[in-house]
Amino acid sequence: MLTALVHIGQLVTVRADGARVKAGSAMRELGILEDGALLFDERIRWVGTTADLFRQREAGELFWDELLEAGGRVVVPGFVDSHTHAVFAGSRAHEYRLRLQGATYQQIAAAGGGIWATVQAVRRASEEELLEQARPLLWSALRHGTTTIEIKSGYGLSLADELKLLRVIRRLGQELPLCVVPTFLGAHAVPPEYQHRRSAYVELLCSEMIPAVAAEGLAEYCDVFADEGYFTLEEAEQILRTASEHGLRPRLHADELAPFGAAELAARLGAVTADHLLHISDAGIVALREAGTIATLLPGTAYTLRLPYAPARRLIDAGVPVALATDCNPGSCLCENMQMVLSLSCQEMGMLPEEALVAATLNGAAALERSHQLGSLEVGKQADFLLLAVREVTELVYHFGINHVHEVWIAGRRVWQAPV
Amino acid sequence: MLTALVHIGQLVTVRADGARVKAGSAMRELGILEDGALLFDERIRWVGTTADLFRQREAGELFWDELLEAGGRVVVPGFVDSHTHAVFAGSRAHEYRLRLQGATYQQIAAAGGGIWATVQAVRRASEEELLEQARPLLWSALRHGTTTIEIKSGYGLSLADELKLLRVIRRLGQELPLCVVPTFLGAHAVPPEYQHRRSAYVELLCSEMIPAVAAEGLAEYCDVFADEGYFTLEEAEQILRTASEHGLRPRLHADELAPFGAAELAARLGAVTADHLLHISDAGIVALREAGTIATLLPGTAYTLRLPYAPARRLIDAGVPVALATDCNPGSCLCENMQMVLSLSCQEMGMLPEEALVAATLNGAAALERSHQLGSLEVGKQADFLLLAVREVTELVYHFGINHVHEVWIAGRRVWQAPV
Repeated sequence: MLTALVHIGQLVTVRADGARVKAGSAMRELGILEDGALLFDERIRWVGTTADLFRQREAGELFWDELLEAGGRVVVPGFVDSHTHAVFAGSRAHEYRLRLQGATYQQIAAAGGGIWATVQAVRRASEEELLEQARPLLWSALRHGTTTIEIKSGYGLSLADELKLLRVIRRLGQELPLCVVPTFLGAHAVPPEYQHRRSAYVELLCSEMIPAVAAEGLAEYCDVFADEGYFTLEEAEQILRTASEHGLRPRLHADELAPFGAAELAARLGAVTADHLLHISDAGIVALREAGTIATLLPGTAYTLRLPYAPARRLIDAGVPVALATDCNPGSCLCENMQMVLSLSCQEMGMLPEEALVAATLNGAAALERSHQLGSLEVGKQADFLLLAVREVTELVYHFGINHVHEVWIAGRRVWQAPV
Repeated sequence: MLTALVHIGQLVTVRADGARVKAGSAMRELGILEDGALLFDERIRWVGTTADLFRQREAGELFWDELLEAGGRVVVPGFVDSHTHAVFAGSRAHEYRLRLQGATYQQIAAAGGGIWATVQAVRRASEEELLEQARPLLWSALRHGTTTIEIKSGYGLSLADELKLLRVIRRLGQELPLCVVPTFLGAHAVPPEYQHRRSAYVELLCSEMIPAVAAEGLAEYCDVFADEGYFTLEEAEQILRTASEHGLRPRLHADELAPFGAAELAARLGAVTADHLLHISDAGIVALREAGTIATLLPGTAYTLRLPYAPARRLIDAGVPVALATDCNPGSCLCENMQMVLSLSCQEMGMLPEEALVAATLNGAAALERSHQLGSLEVGKQADFLLLAVREVTELVYHFGINHVHEVWIAGRRVWQAPV
């Protein structure tokens, strides 16, 4: 069935014209059509102005089964949140208070909190319990405009518990209208039982966990937390190379807590993305640009941990493609709302609204190697889009702290509508 | 009709025990009851635990007409947003982009933007048009938990247009379930037609506008923007003294853009509050404490304008009572969501979640001289409260960027409920 959506106040196509990702000044090009119209079934079949749509029907060149009215609202591509840890057990609200009183993320981890606290809760939880905690969080992400979401494991840190998390992630993708992309992050931290024999954990990752994850087809990507106190560059390289051999494509938590050379490693390994980058070096920026590696920035985490933000302007101005994601997780950023991330990216990292929107849509899709089918509103792409209750797209960040999403459409189906 | 609300996971009373405002370490006392219960009609009639409620009914000491189930949700007093400019015309989204590219608030004003742009739009707008633009914004504030809101005029800057704004503010209060408190801010800026004869505008304020506002009973307070490029301390004093003589109580925009001595003036005049305070001096802090003047902090504005935040910790630690408000306005902070303000106050000003909550409830009520009837959940106070979809009150800030409000109750009536 073909649907026509007309009288779109601003149709923000994020037109990429075949490009898989936007970088530098191209990130400012939103491809806005005033009084736009869309024709779609599961995919987008036609994009133009309302006047052209009706003109072409008059001429017998276009037809549709259903005509819907956007009433002047703004339409943007659905948000692609390409970095989350949204499946977990328990709460770490008490750590939040400790941090406000001055404790660092590392101090909290050293005191038995941090990732390890969540790992303990996850190991105790059943698949059902994990599903029940994740479901409302993912629905909330969807209501705030996320149509595709990457979710990492990494709170199990044993073969059985990592598989449990990845199965929950798979079930969420089957159950919810969202597209869910799974990443194996067994190398999120060295679990305490391996603290004095790190190499045995790396060995477990490479010889048992990665092969098992791959055999069950539970993940598309493998990620490693390469940072001070987590995995070394050598360990990260070994893990990601092994993962690649098993068909899991590499991505990297890079230079979040300290300058570590992890961005350079990501570039060298041909990783799809290097994420966080609060402490990326100048050499790291050059390396990402040369390799075409996407810099995924997570300003909600810098906000929560009260750390200096990643150098978004330097990255963009250097021509590195930048994506934005929530990092949604119980320890360092409990936020599933991409609009909040857009606001922070403008206010705290000096990105322009149009750059933020490209980073949250087309470049997010590219960070999940799906920009040929998602992330912009162009003929042939999947009909994933949002109706926003704003008069112009800048309002999405100008008017902050509230949910502007009026309707969410995924693959041509309306999956959520704001109540009146 | 008496309603009992039981099984409140955490009943956050913000118990003040007769105190009108909390300061210093008292701001950390939330008076939390686990598994709490409330009995109320328009006012709160009983506060305790669910077990005690049922025990007292068994003993024939309590009764009710209706029993409601909180299902373990958290209950807090409704937010009192004591500083907004929420009635205006037009949009200043384009200025948002200019600011991100480096223009200051003052530069934008000098180029014909800023307050003056909104004044022009307001002067062209009818009462109906102003109402229509304000209504959805106030409903949104309510959905995000605001039960009492102060709204200032100040975008008219002529007798007729200031009266028009204040009449719209009055109509909003009559129409919406929110309690609306009106403030006259004719001294928001010197309008261009008086640019070269400032004293004539001050004269107009004192001899015509203030008497007219008072005669029509359109405002409770008079506010002045005392800052570099706005009104001098001498002008502010003259205006506020005149206002006091006409029964309009004083409040002050103080030390927002530069150190100006405005906090000291607020204290000397016995103003109810001094607001903004990004550049308050040490002497200003002492003066506020001595006078018992409330420091109203508006972190959404520092966030939007990318300015250094007000020294919340120094104020609280010095014993000054601190209130939090949105400053909701089209130029420097388009945000009506008090939960966003709570998040910013913790993350950016180092307030603790409990201090932020006191500042947004009891101290907000005190900033509007209503803390004898609003701002905490104690017997005799108005039954204005929120059911929050969180398991413990810290989640309100720990899990940020979304709306946690499940139900809003004002004067014992449920005025909004989140859709399922």
